[in-house]
Amino acid sequence: MSFSPRIETLIESLRCLPGVGRKSAQRMALQILERDRQGGARLAESLQDALAHVGSCNLCRNHSETDICLTCASPRRDKGKLCIVESPADVLAIDQSTGYDGLYFVLMGHLSPLDGIGPDNLGLPSLFKRLQEEAIAEVIIATNPTVEGEATAHFMHEHIKDLAAGNIHVSRIAHGVPIGGELEYVDGGTLAHAFAGRKAW
Amino acid sequence: MSFSPRIETLIESLRCLPGVGRKSAQRMALQILERDRQGGARLAESLQDALAHVGSCNLCRNHSETDICLTCASPRRDKGKLCIVESPADVLAIDQSTGYDGLYFVLMGHLSPLDGIGPDNLGLPSLFKRLQEEAIAEVIIATNPTVEGEATAHFMHEHIKDLAAGNIHVSRIAHGVPIGGELEYVDGGTLAHAFAGRKAW
Repeated sequence: MSFSPRIETLIESLRCLPGVGRKSAQRMALQILERDRQGGARLAESLQDALAHVGSCNLCRNHSETDICLTCASPRRDKGKLCIVESPADVLAIDQSTGYDGLYFVLMGHLSPLDGIGPDNLGLPSLFKRLQEEAIAEVIIATNPTVEGEATAHFMHEHIKDLAAGNIHVSRIAHGVPIGGELEYVDGGTLAHAFAGRKAW
Repeated sequence: MSFSPRIETLIESLRCLPGVGRKSAQRMALQILERDRQGGARLAESLQDALAHVGSCNLCRNHSETDICLTCASPRRDKGKLCIVESPADVLAIDQSTGYDGLYFVLMGHLSPLDGIGPDNLGLPSLFKRLQEEAIAEVIIATNPTVEGEATAHFMHEHIKDLAAGNIHVSRIAHGVPIGGELEYVDGGTLAHAFAGRKAW
């Protein structure tokens, strides 16, 4: 015996959500049907609404409901600075904690030749074109500190160096031990990196 | 800064799912928009489909797409046995692991006077009426082994005893130490219960 076909379909569909397996999906489906049908209806509606209206910003590639996103269109943003990140969540994280007031460019991934993801898939040609045409003085590369993120950062750095001939200041966010942690529990790679990259006081 | 309005609405809506907080909801929304728009569309559709077509079985109160669910309508089920459980997930669990071949009655909750949930909310009047009118020889009470589940079980037992005058065999699933565990790690209440309820070999 199993649940009725429509409940089974719902359980299967819920598994498209990250971190949701069969058991969690079952719990979610039953919870919606038993206790929160209104919430379920609202979820279906907002899903369809978001899928229909959320596209990409033509400038920064971030999710946007308009051709140019609110950040790119904002007159209060410093258009001379561009921060390159891998995902929309990174934009939010940087914006909420750093006080950065420039623009962003969202790669929506990282270079991964084995998965067939090359510079074109990340919108790098349009990024390089923009760097040549617009008056951007500083580029901050904030890809993830993973092997793929580092490789992507290096690739971009090499290209930007060539095309800007020193007119653009390129930087990479600092890597080292996280604030508030204990050295004892920091992984070896990070500690070695922090040690080698020590700064004069 | 935050995400665009429709993404924020989607994130809020996803929080109706059990165990999903702000961060998980954000991850789910971005994952759907970035990598699985098809899965998201399918989820919205199956949600609406399930909400529109899944109601309750008139006999056992379990979720059903028809007036009488497949289990209640099945000719292969022994109609002389009735197992009373709290939720649809319990029906599936018992059916998959015990080989029970009778019918079910799903309370969709437990007695909870403080929350205003009384016998009427659990469909007990219709259950008692059915026990009087139909030829049910055995009732197995399988509510959860919690305080509320126990109270609900006692309440039903008292009523069934009165109305059946001994014609219905009422039983409760056994409580004790789980199979495959170690005594050392079983909680005190369970161990005391298992000890007091020991059976002759």
